Amino acid sequence: MNPYNAPLAEMRFLLENVFDAPKTWSELPAMAESVDMDTAAAILDEADKISRELIHPINRNGDEQGVRHEADKVITPDGYKAVYDQYAEGGWVGLCGDPDLGGMGMPKMLGVLVDEMAYSACNAFTLYGSLTAGAALAIHAHGTEAIKQQYLPMMYSGEWAGAMDMTEPQAGSDLRNIRTKAVPNEDGSYKITGSKIFITGGDHDLTENVIHLVLAKLPNTNGISLFLVPKIKVNDDNSLGLPNGVSVGSIEHKMGLKGSATCVMNFDDAEGYLIGKPNRGLVCMFTMMNYERLAIGIQGLGTSQAAYQMAADYAKERVQGVAAGGSPTGATSDPILVHGDVRRMLLTVRTLTEAGRALSVYTGQQLDLAKYSDNGEAKAKASRYVGLLTPVSKAFLSDRGLDAAIMAQQVFGGHGYIRETGIEQLVRDTRIAQIYEGTNGIQAIDFLGRKVTGDNLSTLTEFVEEHTANIAQFDHVSSEDKTTVLGLFEKLIKVASDVNEAKLKQPALINACAVDFLDAFGYSLYGYFWMAMTYAAHDHEDSRFKQQKQHLSRFYFDKLIAKADYHLSQVAAGDASIMEIDETLF
Amino acid sequence: MNPYNAPLAEMRFLLENVFDAPKTWSELPAMAESVDMDTAAAILDEADKISRELIHPINRNGDEQGVRHEADKVITPDGYKAVYDQYAEGGWVGLCGDPDLGGMGMPKMLGVLVDEMAYSACNAFTLYGSLTAGAALAIHAHGTEAIKQQYLPMMYSGEWAGAMDMTEPQAGSDLRNIRTKAVPNEDGSYKITGSKIFITGGDHDLTENVIHLVLAKLPNTNGISLFLVPKIKVNDDNSLGLPNGVSVGSIEHKMGLKGSATCVMNFDDAEGYLIGKPNRGLVCMFTMMNYERLAIGIQGLGTSQAAYQMAADYAKERVQGVAAGGSPTGATSDPILVHGDVRRMLLTVRTLTEAGRALSVYTGQQLDLAKYSDNGEAKAKASRYVGLLTPVSKAFLSDRGLDAAIMAQQVFGGHGYIRETGIEQLVRDTRIAQIYEGTNGIQAIDFLGRKVTGDNLSTLTEFVEEHTANIAQFDHVSSEDKTTVLGLFEKLIKVASDVNEAKLKQPALINACAVDFLDAFGYSLYGYFWMAMTYAAHDHEDSRFKQQKQHLSRFYFDKLIAKADYHLSQVAAGDASIMEIDETLF
Repeated sequence: MNPYNAPLAEMRFLLENVFDAPKTWSELPAMAESVDMDTAAAILDEADKISRELIHPINRNGDEQGVRHEADKVITPDGYKAVYDQYAEGGWVGLCGDPDLGGMGMPKMLGVLVDEMAYSACNAFTLYGSLTAGAALAIHAHGTEAIKQQYLPMMYSGEWAGAMDMTEPQAGSDLRNIRTKAVPNEDGSYKITGSKIFITGGDHDLTENVIHLVLAKLPNTNGISLFLVPKIKVNDDNSLGLPNGVSVGSIEHKMGLKGSATCVMNFDDAEGYLIGKPNRGLVCMFTMMNYERLAIGIQGLGTSQAAYQMAADYAKERVQGVAAGGSPTGATSDPILVHGDVRRMLLTVRTLTEAGRALSVYTGQQLDLAKYSDNGEAKAKASRYVGLLTPVSKAFLSDRGLDAAIMAQQVFGGHGYIRETGIEQLVRDTRIAQIYEGTNGIQAIDFLGRKVTGDNLSTLTEFVEEHTANIAQFDHVSSEDKTTVLGLFEKLIKVASDVNEAKLKQPALINACAVDFLDAFGYSLYGYFWMAMTYAAHDHEDSRFKQQKQHLSRFYFDKLIAKADYHLSQVAAGDASIMEIDETLF
Repeated sequence: MNPYNAPLAEMRFLLENVFDAPKTWSELPAMAESVDMDTAAAILDEADKISRELIHPINRNGDEQGVRHEADKVITPDGYKAVYDQYAEGGWVGLCGDPDLGGMGMPKMLGVLVDEMAYSACNAFTLYGSLTAGAALAIHAHGTEAIKQQYLPMMYSGEWAGAMDMTEPQAGSDLRNIRTKAVPNEDGSYKITGSKIFITGGDHDLTENVIHLVLAKLPNTNGISLFLVPKIKVNDDNSLGLPNGVSVGSIEHKMGLKGSATCVMNFDDAEGYLIGKPNRGLVCMFTMMNYERLAIGIQGLGTSQAAYQMAADYAKERVQGVAAGGSPTGATSDPILVHGDVRRMLLTVRTLTEAGRALSVYTGQQLDLAKYSDNGEAKAKASRYVGLLTPVSKAFLSDRGLDAAIMAQQVFGGHGYIRETGIEQLVRDTRIAQIYEGTNGIQAIDFLGRKVTGDNLSTLTEFVEEHTANIAQFDHVSSEDKTTVLGLFEKLIKVASDVNEAKLKQPALINACAVDFLDAFGYSLYGYFWMAMTYAAHDHEDSRFKQQKQHLSRFYFDKLIAKADYHLSQVAAGDASIMEIDETLF
């Protein structure tokens, strides 16, 4: 198996040259003192090191061995516990956590890059910390001061883990149907009873406690509320008390992510504490969801990067056939990198991965602005952009993650199908990212239905206008490429506007066309990012770096951006041929 | 896990109404007496029964248990041997084999449908018989009369299995580099020595003998020859003799197809018999390859059909959310089939599967004409079409097979990621079909480089002209759809012609653009098949069948055929952005 090496030059380039992170940080009161480019670069270097030396080495065995459920205990694969301890001690779980409660207070803009590295190194392992950070975030936003003081330091330190408990057998995409009940106790706590499925990190042996955030219904209501339910009760002095009626029913056997414990969780009169207001649980959960959805997009992005590296390395080493037109070195066999089709696959994966990283960092920047800006207008705008971009980041990055893994696997030929090679694991591990945290269909419907047409295109128009203005400033970028992206921006507005006008008369239109609209937006936006990167690379100190970005951008505009037009044409084709066929004819 | 039910109405419709199989058969001397539509329908019914009742039930356990390699024996999963015995006794291995040597002499046009059912029921199990039939075919075409008499009856009856031994560690797509040696013995046989990898069905416990077709080099030559090497030597009276220096080094651990034994085979002075002429082994192998490549395409097709059935059944049962615009039944939750995005996925899978089946049957028809026609001109034309369509069938059907499995898996949401559901197995099992028997990149290069531009578009033009003329006869088909397909046909010729002109100056062009060209051809041809099916369904006795085909065709033309244009634009974009980037920048 190839080692993992983080693309540090690309990461620093995005922070410093493309999105001017130092300027953003200097303008945020919570960041100005604590992070600058040097700090960020040092953190990236360290994250690269632990990803390569600690996390990646447990990736393959974790897949082979898997999680076990023995005598009511969930046991992670060999090595997970030792690596997790070092990971937690390094402060990585609390990287973006509140520094007043033990977090490191780093910006999400940086956090997304650290997340990417960890997912590249091992999808399954990284979920444990990612879920904990997400749960901590929801507690931080909606918990009482006492709850925050009691739980967050232990979660940021990684000593306790977090889990989100939403799905039930009859309630997946549609959470209205959950049956888990919360009955008030006299002391203000609640008795939680019910069963949840598909709970990532629901139980395991990495930490001594798992803090569950559980969706449940209060008596005589259909509203959904959010409760914090620790696996083991916590005493007032923060020591661990008695078990809390939280148990593992079973663990799932999955296509991949075999090192990640996916549990059926049973709550039996478990003591829980309300987070946020009664019947407002979904709103509280969505605070976390914006981050978690981005994180799951980044699972796809990390997979893309890992897949690219493995395939590119293999293509440089594997000798087979001769270059069309004769070997460049006069050899009887050339590395397969000489073949156009192999290059096409590698360039596809690479250009989508680099633009995907730009989307991830940009979304992280908007999350930082939305959370930390002291400028009300800037903060509100960033919140709107976070809303707009979250479903895109989740779905487009995870869809492209699967594409990347499959394409990279193809570069390996027959060897790509063999488990020892490792690339097939990436396909299996990343496949779930298109499904969990809201399927990519649900993301697309959220995007087109709520985020785009929900405010009558106001946020989309604002976003497009801002980026149109930016394009005007991109010197050294081909005017043809600018015209392409500007044309797509116009078409996106036009098509979205048509959908918005038709949506009342054609209620199924949004559902039927949402995935194509999201894809059209994604491929268009990646065109914008490629221009932004080409522009920013023009004065890069490394002329080969500049040349590389120009070539990659050329490929993207020659070969991939036309997909945006295809998807737009699908939205324009409407929903008649989808909805008119009688259900009995399926 | 859902049961499997063959789409018998669709299959009979293609044979009888779309491609007029009875007419074809009545005109072929070898078929006229032995097969008519009643026989064919009876065989389809029986194949449906064994696929559902025998083969499908061993599919899941075969994946869980896998093949084992213990004490030099390769042991298939529980149930495989018993099912194989019944399958062989039913004559299915020899379905299309020479009746003078124990085969059933059925046309390939029918055989492709039987193959599809078996692959739908279980990818892994079906390979054993498929490889045997392929090996028998090469022996039939190139073996001496004595070899044929000795081996074919035992292979058609399924008592002995077949395997193709081509790949070596250093020789995958590029077979020039094989090192396996063949040294002549005095008695006219050869001593074969070398090691082969990735040998499907290389050894197993289903049959008492495995007949290997091995590529090896004669002394002092770089030419490649083909040898028949039995695992156990066969005495003159056809009884089994001594072991033959053929042993299993190991079995591979793979992403899927876990019930199929993929072996490292070692040949140590094994006795082998030349098949065909010395140094012409690749030509002999390619006889089999046309059939095997189609069979592997059908693996993808069978997967598509199984995936569709599972997802459609689930979408009708799984209740979640309410239809946009209100539940049609006034329920508080509807089956997810009401949702546009779910319908979009199902219709995508279904329309590609039905057109794919048309491609499979049409290619089978051309194989029958090429093999059995007594009209020299018709026979030669069919051979050209077989050459043209084989790489398309292999690559386009297997690519769409993976798409189908992934899309169907998405319909299942989180349940699709769980092994017990069964749909994720289809993703893992079918993934290999894009890789083995020549990667789909290799298929595309064969298509564009040899089959299309190799004869300066003569066969492609002939094919397009014939189908253009057919379109003129399609009554009751929308003229807009006709215009779309005719326009694509023209563009295909234009783009192929441009590539043909540029290929000398741009030697990498074909390699770099081949996959897009094949995809453009595939989506265009599927448009043709949808018109052909709509036309043929117009007078169908079942008006709902007719209505269904009209709806499905409408969806295909509204939503999918535009992909052909996208891929054509990629070919037109050339290879500059792929080839100009320096290899050190990857």
